[in-house]
Amino acid sequence: MSFHLLVPLAAVACLAGFSALAADRKPNVIVILADDLGYGDLGCYGHPTIRTPHLDRMAAEGMRFSDFYSVAEVCTPSRAALLTGRYPVRSGMAHDQFRVLRNRSTGHLPANELTLPEVLQSVGYVTGMVGKWHLGVWSIDPAGHPQRHGFGSYLGLPHSNDMDPTPAAPQGAPGMAVQDPAWWNAPLYRDEELVSQPTDQTQLTRVYTEEAQRFIRAHKRQPFFLYFAHTFPHVPLFASAQFRGTSRRGLYGDAVEELDWSVGQILETLRREGLAKNTFVFFTSDNGPWLTMNQQGGSAGLLREGKGSTWEGGMRVPGIAWWPGRIKAGVVNTNLMCMLDLFPTSLKLAGTALPGDRIVDGMDMSALLLNGAPSPRRSLIYYRGARLSAVRKDQWKLHLFTQKGYGQPQPDVHDPPLLFDLNTDPGESFNVAANHALVVADLLQEIERHRETVVAVESQLVAVQSPPARP
Amino acid sequence: MSFHLLVPLAAVACLAGFSALAADRKPNVIVILADDLGYGDLGCYGHPTIRTPHLDRMAAEGMRFSDFYSVAEVCTPSRAALLTGRYPVRSGMAHDQFRVLRNRSTGHLPANELTLPEVLQSVGYVTGMVGKWHLGVWSIDPAGHPQRHGFGSYLGLPHSNDMDPTPAAPQGAPGMAVQDPAWWNAPLYRDEELVSQPTDQTQLTRVYTEEAQRFIRAHKRQPFFLYFAHTFPHVPLFASAQFRGTSRRGLYGDAVEELDWSVGQILETLRREGLAKNTFVFFTSDNGPWLTMNQQGGSAGLLREGKGSTWEGGMRVPGIAWWPGRIKAGVVNTNLMCMLDLFPTSLKLAGTALPGDRIVDGMDMSALLLNGAPSPRRSLIYYRGARLSAVRKDQWKLHLFTQKGYGQPQPDVHDPPLLFDLNTDPGESFNVAANHALVVADLLQEIERHRETVVAVESQLVAVQSPPARP
Repeated sequence: MSFHLLVPLAAVACLAGFSALAADRKPNVIVILADDLGYGDLGCYGHPTIRTPHLDRMAAEGMRFSDFYSVAEVCTPSRAALLTGRYPVRSGMAHDQFRVLRNRSTGHLPANELTLPEVLQSVGYVTGMVGKWHLGVWSIDPAGHPQRHGFGSYLGLPHSNDMDPTPAAPQGAPGMAVQDPAWWNAPLYRDEELVSQPTDQTQLTRVYTEEAQRFIRAHKRQPFFLYFAHTFPHVPLFASAQFRGTSRRGLYGDAVEELDWSVGQILETLRREGLAKNTFVFFTSDNGPWLTMNQQGGSAGLLREGKGSTWEGGMRVPGIAWWPGRIKAGVVNTNLMCMLDLFPTSLKLAGTALPGDRIVDGMDMSALLLNGAPSPRRSLIYYRGARLSAVRKDQWKLHLFTQKGYGQPQPDVHDPPLLFDLNTDPGESFNVAANHALVVADLLQEIERHRETVVAVESQLVAVQSPPARP
Repeated sequence: MSFHLLVPLAAVACLAGFSALAADRKPNVIVILADDLGYGDLGCYGHPTIRTPHLDRMAAEGMRFSDFYSVAEVCTPSRAALLTGRYPVRSGMAHDQFRVLRNRSTGHLPANELTLPEVLQSVGYVTGMVGKWHLGVWSIDPAGHPQRHGFGSYLGLPHSNDMDPTPAAPQGAPGMAVQDPAWWNAPLYRDEELVSQPTDQTQLTRVYTEEAQRFIRAHKRQPFFLYFAHTFPHVPLFASAQFRGTSRRGLYGDAVEELDWSVGQILETLRREGLAKNTFVFFTSDNGPWLTMNQQGGSAGLLREGKGSTWEGGMRVPGIAWWPGRIKAGVVNTNLMCMLDLFPTSLKLAGTALPGDRIVDGMDMSALLLNGAPSPRRSLIYYRGARLSAVRKDQWKLHLFTQKGYGQPQPDVHDPPLLFDLNTDPGESFNVAANHALVVADLLQEIERHRETVVAVESQLVAVQSPPARP
């Protein structure tokens, strides 16, 4: 005890390395996920009119990634990738036409998929989730509930906030410009119990945040895993009275700035409870900005296209890692990392091994995060739904198909494929395939190597119940 | 003397406010100008593959502007705006067709234009310039030399580094991709004396930087004004052996990262010489990125278009102010500020008044910089050459004409004009004129008020000597 008083724990941990700390006390893990937030939408990623002082501070105190990928281009597969560490085609959580689960979908994350909270629970973690699930609609099939997939507690919406419109709701993007809470019928659940429907979405970010704070305070003496999946800035956009009309960027900015406030609250709670030095926090987004929502959609900055597309704007997203005393402050990390990697990285931090009975596509990034080691990840496959559309290896990206996220019914087929150098040309403007035949061949091999590992499974996204079930 | 030892000077200055410090010792002023650097090209403005740790640190220790404008869309008028604080049409330094001075141009900044170094010289400043001038070719008319316009010393190139090609040089953008120093005949001058022609452009950033450091060290006991106008990242791009091939962004990134190194050297010299707390440094770019140079051109981030255009990407540029102890650290300032404002702001810092015999368009931003006051600037006029094309007031921007920077021979004429809300729509995608008739009328009045102040003068950019003069 006197030893701890003389030499602070963080210093001991730094000297003794990771394993000593893990043996002493497993670190908490928090993943905060924004919905449809674009690569260019935060102050620390260069947005001129959205102010995000809390996320900027998180980046200044931690590690900001220039090349972090959501792995999927829309909500459902992205969340499956996060929780399983596997490409969503492996779990049936992707489909070309039915791109996400609907509020009448009968499918869900299969029970035989091993999730991050399930593994962490098995090694002594308390697990909780707050926010949007989108991996099953439990009013239709109870097996789709988060508490059937490793979470000890839950508060949130089963799916996107536009998925249960009332008859009064307008169709399409233009009508989204002025929001009326009465248009939407979003159901809020605590565990398996319906709390409200329709739910006052203006209060949602605050309600989620308070729940997350309660979870943190309640479990500060045990290692915990918290998955905080925001409903915003997905349309329809809402913000509380405190934020409504306060940003320069309109309602989209209001929602992002309230989300930024929420992140600040979570980090402040960790500091106040003395947990900051023992908690790994990762912030990111499930996919790029929904550009066809016009001013209600975000920005991918200098990247091409947005949500729904395998152009960079659809899948490269903000990524910020924070763990004071363990992750070096103020680092901009240009290594390749992606949503898949949060699964094995969290397992490593918790001191447990990967499951041996299945392919895990994610890679352990703990050495990169904690010791500045190079990334073990050199490549990434881009799916649009279940269609393998592109591959990145090092700085090279090869497109077999390209398609706008929305409004382009058929893909452009590229034979020969397009090749872009994402280092010199992050905006994907200059096809250099003709000058790099060996690179093209290498990337095609990368695709083949991946394809050989993929076993076709039935998609969970196809079956839809009719008529709609309302709890 | 003992008083100064007991209470550090900076603390006294903070307590007593600006005038006390100015009375004690006029602050040094350094303006560092990049050439064709885009809004999105620095780490702190969100670029994913260009690393600019020194400029990022400058921003973290100082004030980074989200809405700083170069005032002109190409080199010559932009530099005239900086040195005179006046819209370039007033000095004849703008023209629709001859957009910049050429190496055979006979015109120059008129002798009756009062420059920033002339005023500062008159109140005791030592003045020096390093780098690209582009306001007169003194081998053709000696009256165009920087030392005829207020600078006590000079080292640099009279114009852009692509303006004196040898017969071996290729024509147009594609040939720029691989650089051969022998293609270019750029003349380097010290004061009025030719030092080298052709000049080894790979050494230019280093040579400029060492000269700037010498200037600072030589004048550390007097107030000084240093104008450091980099040659890069204007094409043809060059970097020294230390930087060549080292950035992820290719040669463009190499050049920007060497420029970043140079900024770091300047700030480090100020720190080492004990001058940091008495020196106001401002970093910016003369216009947006030269997009038609492909990978050799930069990025405007989420802004539309680039160099040569009055879309935002042509004129909104990085802007970073630094003065440890006087400018608050880590501030992102979203106020409107522009190149014109450096003239009156520097005069205010030097404790001297604006000239009363002419219109000065710039506004004093010292209260904004030092005390966090709101910007006195609410509006800005956008010229493409001498054609008034757009106006911004608060968040609103009205376009009368739009035209790509390059490759669009005639402008699109907008009657009725286009209106964009730059707060909610910084990418200028959604024309909202139909919904804001009063705003349109107000901005048209703003244009009229400005037009009434402009007296037509002969352009300095038209006359070109033939055959070319070679010193």
